[in-house]
Amino acid sequence: MERIRIAIDAMGGDLAPAAPVEAAAEAIRQNDGIELILLGDEQAIRSELDRIGFSDSRLSVVHCTERIEMAEPPVAAIQKKKDSSLVRGMMMVRKGEADAVISAGSTGAVLVGGQVLVGRIRGVERPPLGALMPTEKGMSLLIDCGANVDARPTWLLQFAEMGSIYMESALNIPNPTVGILNIGAEEEKGNSLVKETIPLLKECSSINFIGSVEARDIPSGAADVIVTDAFSGNLIMKMYEGTATTIYRIAKKGLMSTLPGMIGGLLIKGTLKKTLLKRFDAAKYGGAPLLGLKGLVVKAHGSSGAVEFRVAIEQCTQFYRENVNEKIRERMEAQASAIREMKKR
Amino acid sequence: MERIRIAIDAMGGDLAPAAPVEAAAEAIRQNDGIELILLGDEQAIRSELDRIGFSDSRLSVVHCTERIEMAEPPVAAIQKKKDSSLVRGMMMVRKGEADAVISAGSTGAVLVGGQVLVGRIRGVERPPLGALMPTEKGMSLLIDCGANVDARPTWLLQFAEMGSIYMESALNIPNPTVGILNIGAEEEKGNSLVKETIPLLKECSSINFIGSVEARDIPSGAADVIVTDAFSGNLIMKMYEGTATTIYRIAKKGLMSTLPGMIGGLLIKGTLKKTLLKRFDAAKYGGAPLLGLKGLVVKAHGSSGAVEFRVAIEQCTQFYRENVNEKIRERMEAQASAIREMKKR
Repeated sequence: MERIRIAIDAMGGDLAPAAPVEAAAEAIRQNDGIELILLGDEQAIRSELDRIGFSDSRLSVVHCTERIEMAEPPVAAIQKKKDSSLVRGMMMVRKGEADAVISAGSTGAVLVGGQVLVGRIRGVERPPLGALMPTEKGMSLLIDCGANVDARPTWLLQFAEMGSIYMESALNIPNPTVGILNIGAEEEKGNSLVKETIPLLKECSSINFIGSVEARDIPSGAADVIVTDAFSGNLIMKMYEGTATTIYRIAKKGLMSTLPGMIGGLLIKGTLKKTLLKRFDAAKYGGAPLLGLKGLVVKAHGSSGAVEFRVAIEQCTQFYRENVNEKIRERMEAQASAIREMKKR
Repeated sequence: MERIRIAIDAMGGDLAPAAPVEAAAEAIRQNDGIELILLGDEQAIRSELDRIGFSDSRLSVVHCTERIEMAEPPVAAIQKKKDSSLVRGMMMVRKGEADAVISAGSTGAVLVGGQVLVGRIRGVERPPLGALMPTEKGMSLLIDCGANVDARPTWLLQFAEMGSIYMESALNIPNPTVGILNIGAEEEKGNSLVKETIPLLKECSSINFIGSVEARDIPSGAADVIVTDAFSGNLIMKMYEGTATTIYRIAKKGLMSTLPGMIGGLLIKGTLKKTLLKRFDAAKYGGAPLLGLKGLVVKAHGSSGAVEFRVAIEQCTQFYRENVNEKIRERMEAQASAIREMKKR
């Protein structure tokens, strides 16, 4: 079996280069089927590798002299910093020297780089960023959660298609349910984008569309794939994070204010870690895939540690083992002709 | 001092007529400055009043033969059911027979009725529904959270104005901070609506605009007034509710699975009720005001009990004591001329 080649931006994220380097070493040890390329400041990367005492022929280092900072305007950064770890990684995918690229760097730069440097699969109107959200039942793919803020109905239709393929192939969920994010279940509810998209989703025979999904039902696991524009998707993701964090902080503060609270808090700690935190542990789901590109681009969270990078590497492996991009390509071809038919009518 | 007259839809909500009737009796007992009108099935209302043994000249009952159901299409319901408790209540406000109307019935019917029957203040482009959200610091007004899904920049500017007046006058928050709901703090972030609205908010001298507010910062209390379109606002509100509920359920289930968890759970219960639940208790904030109308319309939550109705009655009282509508009228006049000036340039 051919090895999967994954480029890793070793300079992106709060814990770089330590976290990506450690994850790369661990992945090479455990997975025979991969080759990894660490991109960034060679000296910094080599010193991390020396620290953990690792070297392997399947792990190479590509020296880059530049680095894209979080606050840089994405388009300018991608255009100017040709020798940055992110641009070099994307170019490796473009040239077929790598199958996938992972970065925990600037989201904007990853999105722009993905579109401009890696390039879209023929027929894909806009590549969406899909976030895996932990829910009570398992996980849901929220797509788009970051790439296309002012979206169109046909784009959302494609997000639904690509999201379904991803969940089915890369995450082994058979016939995944697809819902559209909405503010009510009734037909007349929604903004104009949602109202115009629903008929397209209904008519699409290759997805398992179950109708509107309200925000309140997302945490309990309302659908496997939740389709939306990037503005709404981002609101949902951030609200999830913010609410959980605030509840946790207030509860903790409150518990520490009384003696029974303090004792009780100590008693429940272990159990809660096992149930609540394990269930909502985003780390085990890796990064957010940018779908519809000629190679896989995975945006890891800025705060990713070695565990998150490690999972992201497995995510890329699974993506290629299951030929997700081949399936997207076929579906887009079919989709494009279906849309042409619809427009004729 | 003139008494404030509040019409109450005694047939709306899951707990009607018991909850609104009980709240009305309690409000009359405690507040000398109000007159209440209960609208609905007279026999049902009288039997509730008899049950609690209450009668007072400041509490009257207006018999209505019809009732708008939750599932009815709002526009048709408002047009056809002229003798419903909701339509009669709104008509009382329109004719100046009441200053405010409270309903826990169909949100759609309340929104349509407010616009069509009560009517807008001159200069108000669209009346927004504002929801008071409990936060770590106190509360925020999320405006719009239900009325205008496809909004325009000038509408959002007015929501900011009206929301500021409401928080300052009705809730005694001096110089309330105003943020626009967005997916990042940087200038270039946002969808086209947000990007076009920000300059208008910046230029508006009568509000205390602090820039973009991310969803993740809402629960900790990022701004007193959070301006958005009704689609996004509704997503935020429902996500808040859904996340809190799911976390609570999973934690409870988890705790009940181990002995230390069970004991600890019992120990922390009292403390958590005092801190977490009290802080996030929506009941104490009453209903959602529909602002910009010639009289006040308050949409109470469908599950409102007597406490929630009671708070909504006080909310109406405060609204009139502080002449909120007069202030909105003046501000809209000034706003309208400012917009005219801006358009000229």
